[in-house]
Parts: sequence; structure tokens; C-alpha cells
Amino acid sequence: MARLRVAFLGPAASFSHQAAAEAFGKTSAELQPCVSFAEAFAAVQQQTADYAVIPCENSTNGSVVQTLDLLADRNGLYNDVKVCSEYYLTVHHCLLVHKGSFPSGWAGYDGSITKLYTHPQAWGQCDTFLSRYFKGVERQDVSSTSKAAEIVSKETAERGAAIASRFAAEHHGVDVLQENIEDRADNTTRFLILRNVLAERTAQLAVEQAATNFAASHKTLISFTINHSSPGALADALLIFKAHGLNLTSINTRPSLKRAWQYIFFVECARTPTDENKDAVSKVLTGLRNVTESCRDLGTWEDQSSPSRG
Amino acid sequence: MARLRVAFLGPAASFSHQAAAEAFGKTSAELQPCVSFAEAFAAVQQQTADYAVIPCENSTNGSVVQTLDLLADRNGLYNDVKVCSEYYLTVHHCLLVHKGSFPSGWAGYDGSITKLYTHPQAWGQCDTFLSRYFKGVERQDVSSTSKAAEIVSKETAERGAAIASRFAAEHHGVDVLQENIEDRADNTTRFLILRNVLAERTAQLAVEQAATNFAASHKTLISFTINHSSPGALADALLIFKAHGLNLTSINTRPSLKRAWQYIFFVECARTPTDENKDAVSKVLTGLRNVTESCRDLGTWEDQSSPSRG
Repeated sequence: MARLRVAFLGPAASFSHQAAAEAFGKTSAELQPCVSFAEAFAAVQQQTADYAVIPCENSTNGSVVQTLDLLADRNGLYNDVKVCSEYYLTVHHCLLVHKGSFPSGWAGYDGSITKLYTHPQAWGQCDTFLSRYFKGVERQDVSSTSKAAEIVSKETAERGAAIASRFAAEHHGVDVLQENIEDRADNTTRFLILRNVLAERTAQLAVEQAATNFAASHKTLISFTINHSSPGALADALLIFKAHGLNLTSINTRPSLKRAWQYIFFVECARTPTDENKDAVSKVLTGLRNVTESCRDLGTWEDQSSPSRG
Repeated sequence: MARLRVAFLGPAASFSHQAAAEAFGKTSAELQPCVSFAEAFAAVQQQTADYAVIPCENSTNGSVVQTLDLLADRNGLYNDVKVCSEYYLTVHHCLLVHKGSFPSGWAGYDGSITKLYTHPQAWGQCDTFLSRYFKGVERQDVSSTSKAAEIVSKETAERGAAIASRFAAEHHGVDVLQENIEDRADNTTRFLILRNVLAERTAQLAVEQAATNFAASHKTLISFTINHSSPGALADALLIFKAHGLNLTSINTRPSLKRAWQYIFFVECARTPTDENKDAVSKVLTGLRNVTESCRDLGTWEDQSSPSRG
């Protein structure tokens, strides 16, 4: 069988690339960089990729609205795209330097770095470390943390350093001078893994999932729109989940763009699978069709978050 | 009585400034520009401003997460700040030129504009007009639409034009060459008006509200956090609104930042006020205290959206 093709948001060595590599294996899958989330969705719809790995939520910054807007699929471009799994990536930043430029490592660091490169978001995520060791050092914004690592890999004259992942360091062949320099050790991004429901070769999930455990919770994502002039319509829709034993775990909304102040709701719900509730999702969908204007099953998958989440 | 002080997000002639001027009157109130939403919240908490006018939601782009994060008030900085009204501003863009530079107006426009200035978001909002009349013309991003109008007001040598509001045109003394050049005529931003609940001088609302109409709906905003390990807790919380006759009109979530994947929920609900439901909000709050970890009443105000919303 041909290698699996997995789409991710580029450039190479981005956090999306790292998530794709960890979820599917760097060598066993063909990882395809995309220039936008829309390109990754289209690749799955058109089956030029078997899977896409898309960030949907960060534990500090919240939901990724571009991903919600693509899942909303207001123009029906991605009819066959569904979520089949998820992957949690803890975001660790490192201080990266040109290969061999600091042979004695961080312990022997002499304060000679004169310029720092990273994506604008990363400065704030490493504030404590940077204030302590790099106060007043020139900072240059670049388009991605991976790009920062690349710049440092190529420089010869300057004493620059990049803030990026260990994955980017390995990709660009630079040294890690110090690791885990982020303020929040628990900063985590959740990625959704998408497949085309019509594709036979991905009917059997290829992702390395946590050992199958009958107690593992199953998550389901459903989107719907309601008639906003009908009082109680949203509460009625949410009640249906409860009536069938599905626990609401998150709710997101995006403008419907059909009429101002009307929304597409994204409800994620969970259940511990039992014989009794194995039809719960289809029963919920049937119930929702009676109280919503439109609704869509966006997929069911096994919870991959740590057991400590409860 | 001293003039009312109203805080808004600057610079002068921003859309927030326009909303503040329309809601409170340009001359009857002292409008105070702030450099951030946080500064505007702090001004209300410390009573250096009587009101703040803060964008919370755009009909095309969705919720303003910075505003939700300030309403979440995770560090208890804005204990006395509540919503007391709202204001809807339809976003219209105009093509602005240096005063007197095109005396025959748009009908006689000769194609001589060589450079366009605006905020990056506005290019996409005026795509149809720009593709038709300004294909290939150089574009320069600036920090605000108001800044674009200011640049055009000062230029002497170049033939530049700005995309900004009529309000910005009047503020900076430039000519409107063409108006309503936006793609979507219904692009509207909703602003929340905040006050300090301890301030006596704002106990009587100063905003010009729609003529009081007993059928006008009252909106209420409530935030809460739940124990995520308790199945059904979110559904139980939402049920309480329904039980007391409050219609859920929107739900937003932000990370709690206490623990990953736990959220602060913002529920907006509405009721047509009657004698029977006049205590509904306090009853909902009492009910929520039994099923949430924390909850907060963020205010009640009269719906200012057009009656056609239903």
C-alpha cells in the first residue's frame, strides 16, 4: 500500500508539522505542507491527502476561529470531511543557536547573543526567561518559529538566537542552548485529525491511538443552526444531548453569515461507550433535526487527552 | 453637573470613537481615547470615566476575544464593572481624498490615484469596489482607518486615497470621493456600554435609548465556570435559564486559565419583561450558584437591535 499522505499547515518544522509527525510517524507517512487551513481541508475533500492535522484550540489562547469557519463549511465545499481523531501537543520553546557556536552550552553562556528571532506570539510566551537573561537584546519578528530557526542556521557573522521548538532545531540543524523556556509548562494545542468519509483506505484509522481502553471516552462534534426567532430553541437543542446521555464538553459559536447575529453552534460532547448508549449520537442527530434549521455530524473519535482530565 | 466622561479605544476617529459619539453625543460628553481595552475597563473601575464603549462582536468576524477576556476578569480587577447598554454601529467605508483635490467628485474621477491607505482588515471588506476601480494600484497597510485618513489629509505631493469612515473624514478634514464602498452592507459591530455599579451619577442611564417600549426585550449577560469532571454540569446550568423563562441568545467560551481545557462560559439571555418574570435574573443566579463553581452577573440592559431581528 502507498504511504499515507498527511496534510499540515506549513512551513516545514511548524508546530502543525510536529503534531503530524508525532501522530503519524515522520518516516512512515508522507507529510504535505499546505499554505492555508483551507488548502488542507480541500486536500482531504479531494483525496489528494488521506488525513489533515489541524489546530483547533490552544489551552491559553482558546479556539482557532479559522478552523471553526472551515468546519462551518457555509458553501458546502467539504461535505465529506470529518474528524476521526485528535492529538495534543504541548508547546515547548527552546533557545536555538548556530551549530557549534556555543560549545560550552548554557552553563558557559557568556552573554554574547546580540539578536533574537521568533514569531510575535512567542515573545509573550517566554517573557520570564527573556526578561531575566535577554533584557534589552534586539528582537526581530519573523513569520514563524521555524523561520527563526532557519535564519540562525544560515547566519555566519552575527551572534543571533531563535526561539522555536526542538523539532525545528532538528529540522534546521541548529543547537538547543536552553530548553523549556516558556512561562506556562502546560501550554497545549489540540489538533483535530480529519479524513474523507468516502475514502476506503482510511476507514481503518492509521493514527497511533492510546491503547484501546473500554473506559476511554468517545467525543463527538456536531454543528447546527437554529431559528433565532423561536424562544428556547437553543436550550431545546442542548437538552437533546443530555436526554441521550451525552455530556456537553465545549460549545463554540461563529456568525452564520446568512443573517447578522445568527450563529453556527459547535457542540462537542462525550460519552463513555456502553451497549446502552451506542446509538446515542444518531438519536441526538434525529432529535436535533426537529429543533434546528440545519445540523451536521462532524465525527466521533476516542478522547486522547490525559486520563487526569477526568 | 460635570460632563459625562466616556472612554473608548483610540485613536481619535476610530469606529469606537464614532460609536461613543453617536451613543452619548459628540459635544455633550467628554470622550476619552484609551490605548487598550484594559485601560478603558480600568477607567470605569476607578471611576476616572463614567462609561466605556467597547466592541464585543462583529456580525461578520464574530466575538472580540480581548473583550471577553476582560469581562472574564480572572484576577478580579474589574469587580464593579457591568454592562448597562449596547450600541449597534453599521460599518460603512468611504474612499477619502485630500480636501479639494478632486473638485468634480467621483463622477468625474480621472483614474489618477496612485496609492491607497487603510487598515489591513478593510482591504478585504471593500474587495469588489477595489477590484473594479483600483486594480494594480499600490496599497499601504496602516495601523487604523483613522490613521489612513490622517495621512491623506497631510499629503501634498502624492495622489493618495484612504479607506475609512465618513466620521474619520470629518475629523481629519478630507473629502469623501465615494461612500459605502464595502462589500457587505450589513457589516455591523455591537458595542457594550459599561458603567461602575457603585457610581451614583450613572445610576440613571445617560445613553439615548430607543423609545421605551414595554415590549422591548431585556438582555442579561452572565458568566460562569463549572466543574468539568461532573457530567451534565453544563447542560444543568443552561437548563436553569430555560426554567425561569430566559431565552438563550448567545454563548461564548474562553479558557479559564486555571486548568487546561476548562472554560469560562458567557451566556447572553433575553426576556420580554412582565410582572411574572421580573425576578427571573436573580432566580437564575441563585440556581446557578448550586451547579457552577463560580458565576457572575455582568448586567442587564434593553435590547437596542432593530425590531426586525425578532
